[in-house]
Amino acid sequence: MSLPSPLAGRLGGVPLSLAEDGWRAGCARCRADSLPLAELPRYSAGRGERPEAARSHTPVPAARRGKAGPLLPQMEAIEELALAPCASSQYLRPYRLRYRQNGTKKFWDFMRTHDSVSILIFNSSRQCFVVVKQFRPAVYMCEMERHCPQDFQSKDQDSWFPLLDPLPATEGVTYELCAGIVDKPGLSLEEIACNEVLEECGYDVPITNLKRITSYRSGVGVTGSKQTLFYAEVTDQMKTGEGGGQPEEGELIEVVEVPLQDSMKFAFDEHFPKTMGIIFSFMWFQSNVALKLLEK
Amino acid sequence: MSLPSPLAGRLGGVPLSLAEDGWRAGCARCRADSLPLAELPRYSAGRGERPEAARSHTPVPAARRGKAGPLLPQMEAIEELALAPCASSQYLRPYRLRYRQNGTKKFWDFMRTHDSVSILIFNSSRQCFVVVKQFRPAVYMCEMERHCPQDFQSKDQDSWFPLLDPLPATEGVTYELCAGIVDKPGLSLEEIACNEVLEECGYDVPITNLKRITSYRSGVGVTGSKQTLFYAEVTDQMKTGEGGGQPEEGELIEVVEVPLQDSMKFAFDEHFPKTMGIIFSFMWFQSNVALKLLEK
Repeated sequence: MSLPSPLAGRLGGVPLSLAEDGWRAGCARCRADSLPLAELPRYSAGRGERPEAARSHTPVPAARRGKAGPLLPQMEAIEELALAPCASSQYLRPYRLRYRQNGTKKFWDFMRTHDSVSILIFNSSRQCFVVVKQFRPAVYMCEMERHCPQDFQSKDQDSWFPLLDPLPATEGVTYELCAGIVDKPGLSLEEIACNEVLEECGYDVPITNLKRITSYRSGVGVTGSKQTLFYAEVTDQMKTGEGGGQPEEGELIEVVEVPLQDSMKFAFDEHFPKTMGIIFSFMWFQSNVALKLLEK
Repeated sequence: MSLPSPLAGRLGGVPLSLAEDGWRAGCARCRADSLPLAELPRYSAGRGERPEAARSHTPVPAARRGKAGPLLPQMEAIEELALAPCASSQYLRPYRLRYRQNGTKKFWDFMRTHDSVSILIFNSSRQCFVVVKQFRPAVYMCEMERHCPQDFQSKDQDSWFPLLDPLPATEGVTYELCAGIVDKPGLSLEEIACNEVLEECGYDVPITNLKRITSYRSGVGVTGSKQTLFYAEVTDQMKTGEGGGQPEEGELIEVVEVPLQDSMKFAFDEHFPKTMGIIFSFMWFQSNVALKLLEK
C-alpha cells in the first residue's frame, strides 16, 4: 500500500530525498505501535545504570550476541545523533478532521498509520516466552526531551541539530511482542502474523497453531489503529532460523527468551521498559494457559 | 507547556488559524494515547448495527443521557465531516532522528506527545468499574479509511474534502479508562490522576487512595511516550459531581459503569471497541484485588 505524502517534500529548501542521501529509513514494518521491553541492567553503562536488583530475572538473549562484546551490543551502538523537524514523511500522514458534534464545531488532528498484529509466543520445549528487543527512536527521544528539553525547543528552524549530550542507547531499547503492520491486502491477519514470527523469531508456525486472543484500539488520541493479538505455542522443532528481522530493511532485532517462572516478576518490573501488550499477554497466559500446562 | 510548531503554519496558502475560524480544537487533554471502549449495540443505527448477542452485558451509563433521545445521544450527533491534510499543528509535532546504528546510517520519523496517566476506578459501593466513553476522531477515521480508502488517497491537494458517505459516529466511539496527559510540570503523576478522576468521573479521591499499578511505553513506533497506570477504589460517598470532562475545553465524555460480574466478558467482547488498557486493568483487578474482595 502506498503512503501518500500530503505535505510538500521540502525541508529548508532541500528536497528530503536529497537531504537523506546516504541515510536509510528504519524498518517500515517495525512501525506497529505495539508491544516492547529492554534488557537494561545487563547492558547499561554510565548514566543509564540500573540497580542490581533488576538483574535477578534478566531475560536471556535467544541466539545472537553483540559483536562489540557484552557491554555494547550492535543494537546499542548508536552514534552521530541529529534531530530535525520533519516537514514531509512517507511514514507519518497527518490529517485534520473537522466536524460538528452536538452542534459545536470542532477539529481534531490525527495521523493515519497501519493496523497491526502482535503475537505472544510460548516455547513449550523450554517453557519460556519468546519476545523481541530493539532500539526505538521514538522512545529514546521521549527520554531525551525529559533530559534535554532545549533540544526540542530550539527546533523551529529547518536544519539538523546534532545531539551533543546523548543518553545511553539503552534508554531507547524496549522489549516487545513479535509484531508487524498490516500492509499486504492479499494476506490474512493470521498469515501476516505467521510471517512475522518466522522473520523476527525464526519459528515456522503453522497457521492453525495461531489462536486469536482479542483486538483493541491503540493510540486513540493520535492514530486510532486496530491491533489484533494472537497466541502461538511453538516447540524447538519449529525453529528454522535465527530470526532477527530483515537487516536489508533496516531491522536490527534481538530475540529474547523470558522463562515462564520469571515472567510475572519481569512484567511488573519497571526497570525493564516494555509495552502494555507484553504485560497484558503474560497475564492472559497465566489466566488462560498456565493452569492447563500444569495439568499436563 | 508550550508546543512548538516546527512546520510553517500554512495550508494551501491560508494560515491555519484563519482556516479554522469558528472551529475549535477537541480537548487537548484527551490526547493521551490511552485506554478506550464503545457502547455500540445500544446506540447503533443502520450500517453500524451489531448483533443482538452483544447487548447481554452492555455497560450502564452512570449519569447522563443524551438529550436527543436514546437512539442518538449528544456524543454521537456528528455532522458536517470534512478532511484535510494537516500541514501545521500545535498537537502533532513531527520530527526526524538521524543516527548511525552499528555502523549503518538510519533515520526514523516520529512524533512527540506528552506522557500520560490512566486510572482504573472501582466503585466498591456498587461493585462496578467506572470508565469513560467518547467519540475519537482518529479511531473513526481509521474505520473511514477501511470503508472509503479513496477519501484518503485524494488528499494530496491542500483543501477540505467533505466526507459525503460517513459511517455512523458509533464507529469512532470507544470505552477507555479515565486518563489524561502529563502537561503540568508542578503536579505529580498522582495529583494529575486525581484531577482527572474528579473532572471526568466526578469522584473526589484522596491521593493516598491511589495505587500505582505499573508504567509502560505506548506507541513505540510513533510516539514512544510513557503511560503510568493507577488503581483507585472509590465509594458513592466520594461522588461530588457528574464528571463528563470540561465542555469548555471541548470535552464530551460519558461516564459508564461496568458491573464487576460482567467485566471479563465485556473485556474480551470485540463488539465493544476499547483499548488494551481497559482489558489489561480488568484482568489485573481479577488477579490482584477480586480475591481480597471475596474474603471481606
